[in-house]
Amino acid sequence: MRSSFFAFLLMALPLAAADVDPRPAQLERIFAESLGNGDAYRTLEELTRRFPGRLSGSPAHAGAVDWLETKLQAAGFDRVRRQETRVIYWERGAPESVTLLGAGPGPIPLAATALGFSGATPVEGLTAEVVVVNSLEELRALGPEAVRGKIVFFHRPMDPALFHPGRAYGRAGDQRNRGPALAASLGAVGAVVRSLTHAHDDVPHTGYTGFPPETPAIPAAALSSLAAERLLAAVRHNPSVRLEMKVFARTHAEPVISHNLIAELTGSEFPDQILLVGGHSDSWDIAPGAHDDGAGVVQAIEVLRLFKTLGIRPRHTLRCVLFTNEENGLAGGLAYAKEAEETGEKHIFAIESDAGGFQPRGFELGHLSQKPATRAEKWIPLFAPYGLGQFFEGTGGADVNPLMAQGVTVGDLRTDSQRYFDIHHTREDDIDQVNPRELQIGAAALASLLWLIDQEGL
Amino acid sequence: MRSSFFAFLLMALPLAAADVDPRPAQLERIFAESLGNGDAYRTLEELTRRFPGRLSGSPAHAGAVDWLETKLQAAGFDRVRRQETRVIYWERGAPESVTLLGAGPGPIPLAATALGFSGATPVEGLTAEVVVVNSLEELRALGPEAVRGKIVFFHRPMDPALFHPGRAYGRAGDQRNRGPALAASLGAVGAVVRSLTHAHDDVPHTGYTGFPPETPAIPAAALSSLAAERLLAAVRHNPSVRLEMKVFARTHAEPVISHNLIAELTGSEFPDQILLVGGHSDSWDIAPGAHDDGAGVVQAIEVLRLFKTLGIRPRHTLRCVLFTNEENGLAGGLAYAKEAEETGEKHIFAIESDAGGFQPRGFELGHLSQKPATRAEKWIPLFAPYGLGQFFEGTGGADVNPLMAQGVTVGDLRTDSQRYFDIHHTREDDIDQVNPRELQIGAAALASLLWLIDQEGL
Repeated sequence: MRSSFFAFLLMALPLAAADVDPRPAQLERIFAESLGNGDAYRTLEELTRRFPGRLSGSPAHAGAVDWLETKLQAAGFDRVRRQETRVIYWERGAPESVTLLGAGPGPIPLAATALGFSGATPVEGLTAEVVVVNSLEELRALGPEAVRGKIVFFHRPMDPALFHPGRAYGRAGDQRNRGPALAASLGAVGAVVRSLTHAHDDVPHTGYTGFPPETPAIPAAALSSLAAERLLAAVRHNPSVRLEMKVFARTHAEPVISHNLIAELTGSEFPDQILLVGGHSDSWDIAPGAHDDGAGVVQAIEVLRLFKTLGIRPRHTLRCVLFTNEENGLAGGLAYAKEAEETGEKHIFAIESDAGGFQPRGFELGHLSQKPATRAEKWIPLFAPYGLGQFFEGTGGADVNPLMAQGVTVGDLRTDSQRYFDIHHTREDDIDQVNPRELQIGAAALASLLWLIDQEGL
Repeated sequence: MRSSFFAFLLMALPLAAADVDPRPAQLERIFAESLGNGDAYRTLEELTRRFPGRLSGSPAHAGAVDWLETKLQAAGFDRVRRQETRVIYWERGAPESVTLLGAGPGPIPLAATALGFSGATPVEGLTAEVVVVNSLEELRALGPEAVRGKIVFFHRPMDPALFHPGRAYGRAGDQRNRGPALAASLGAVGAVVRSLTHAHDDVPHTGYTGFPPETPAIPAAALSSLAAERLLAAVRHNPSVRLEMKVFARTHAEPVISHNLIAELTGSEFPDQILLVGGHSDSWDIAPGAHDDGAGVVQAIEVLRLFKTLGIRPRHTLRCVLFTNEENGLAGGLAYAKEAEETGEKHIFAIESDAGGFQPRGFELGHLSQKPATRAEKWIPLFAPYGLGQFFEGTGGADVNPLMAQGVTVGDLRTDSQRYFDIHHTREDDIDQVNPRELQIGAAALASLLWLIDQEGL
């Protein structure tokens, strides 16, 4: 009796084992491989060392694309190709300077960096008095009389009391994005903007600024937070101090050919249905671009490597896309979405990593009509052991967002962002700011989510 | 009809407003004050600049305690006092050295740091062959014949594939904690241990090692991970290479008087019932001690400042305790618990911050018989907007853990720990590794949890 009971138990064991949820063990394999043998950090080290300042259109970016293509080919993925697009090439030229005059015995240099699409000053520079505003509304209220011939200084800092730096960045960002154009439309000869950062240092942060076709592209620069505070104090003490700006930037008249890179592992069951993971290969010209977005690039490549190394054959085609021109035009993301629409390619899901290679906290998911984040909550227990598993409704990363209009579910890796805006769009966005383990955890998180969607849909 | 309906609605509004849960707004106030006007980072900057290397018993630690006491007094809390205890004072002495001989044309210096409670070598140093083991078990199996007169080298690295660095630290830590004593008991003349870190660099990590009374305190040092790999390769290539160790450390024969610091905001309803928040004022002698545990010290002070500044009068007495001697003896935590027991003080809750000033993820809570983490889960929605709110069952921080035996619910702030063991117990644990916002978020998290427990119990 007893022995036959044990025999029954032994027979039943394989069945019981088969009932065990295999997903936790699969995620454990993915995270262990990424943390134990990951390749993302080494690739990022090489990318940032060899191709810092990868602004699209530049030789540095073209070199990075060539090198990344070779990397993808050497990795043994099923298919690697380029996708051509054209980008507007803005070039900084000789180093810019912003100098405070009349606030001391001599000129006081202020740490500054020209903004992307800034116009140039005359070769000898330009000098003007300063109009201080803390918002676009305040500038509009002043009107052209107060502004004509002056340099407008937008000084509103990011609000430190907001928990999410990204939210503070968004709320202060209109000054950089649209401030110089508004100033130009009111007759200003130049614009300076306090850098978008919580850091209190002398590192200026560049970034995009837009000039509509009818508006002259005046010289526009970001000041470090310390330089902005110095200028503010000087103007308040003596409104007749002047700024000298020297900016030698130009926007090339002809667009330049640039490329997205696409690599794939072919799906075993649905080769025509695509799961996309991406990052953008371009960076600002002054930045090594380690977090923005070298991290996303190497994580996207690492996702394919993890599948391949672990012998996980995806049912749908797993595609890595390294987009061009995210920083100043989105030509890469738009070209990709256009071709997908024209060829009728079916995307199941498209996620980008473009929030820095910091410890991931979860995923932003978006769809035109459904609530994918709510549906993904069933996976929270699977991700919780890795310190993530929050799902947020959103609109996906900038490069995959254009797919959303075609009905694709899109996503973005959400990371701990408290450190990001200290170095965002600066020379400090370098490999030493990246923790290898946090970077590899991001790659594992992306691979895990893609594996779950590949298996179960979303 | 319609107008009276609206009148009814208007009358109902204040009542509806009164029904709104006030807790989210209170947490928002706490986080906004900490992030917008926080004082923790500035205090930490000064503490680490003025009193690096605060090993308890040392003049640096005594100076830090004096300075912190002045800080607490100036902050206008209700009561500040010292609590005396005695600590064993281990002193490093002149700089140590570990040199590889016979592996090249000349001696090769290896980056090394003596472990706390290491014994000394003769003044001229000692030289011996090396016995390589990757575990205490392997050393035991070798036995005294293979070990006598040799230097034992424990080379097992922390397992990078484990997600939690703290777990990898725990699993590799027996080599540092007990390896040198085991080596000594088998007749070894010295011991070197691979540093407990995931970092791949030339920075050695010190830490506690224990010698039972009957075991001679042989010289014991940690090697940087690169030095450990170099030594391993050298011994495998040529087993007769030798190490020269010079260590000049000593453990003072007489205990030294040291102090915990205690500051309070008196409870409005239950002044005799205590909510405790603490950190430890000591650090390793080679470390500025920014994360370990300057962060915990300034966060504990900041919690009281937040309550005071925001006009939140606690119902129970809110007490900040800055413990001494956490790193090498726990005399502070034990003395505190002993006095609490002797005086019959009632502690409602005691939490420590000693996991570095990184982005907090949640709280570890512990009690002898209850499951406080499960009960605290009701607060997850309140903490989720701040990227934390995971509650784990545990045993609290090392300094508050002795209170657990008295039936007190204890806790520990859990942080993102991927970066911690890169700098733990090294000269690199400095203010530049601390992000001001992450530090302030930790203080706000502690203040929020203590406020909730003050209001609702646990």
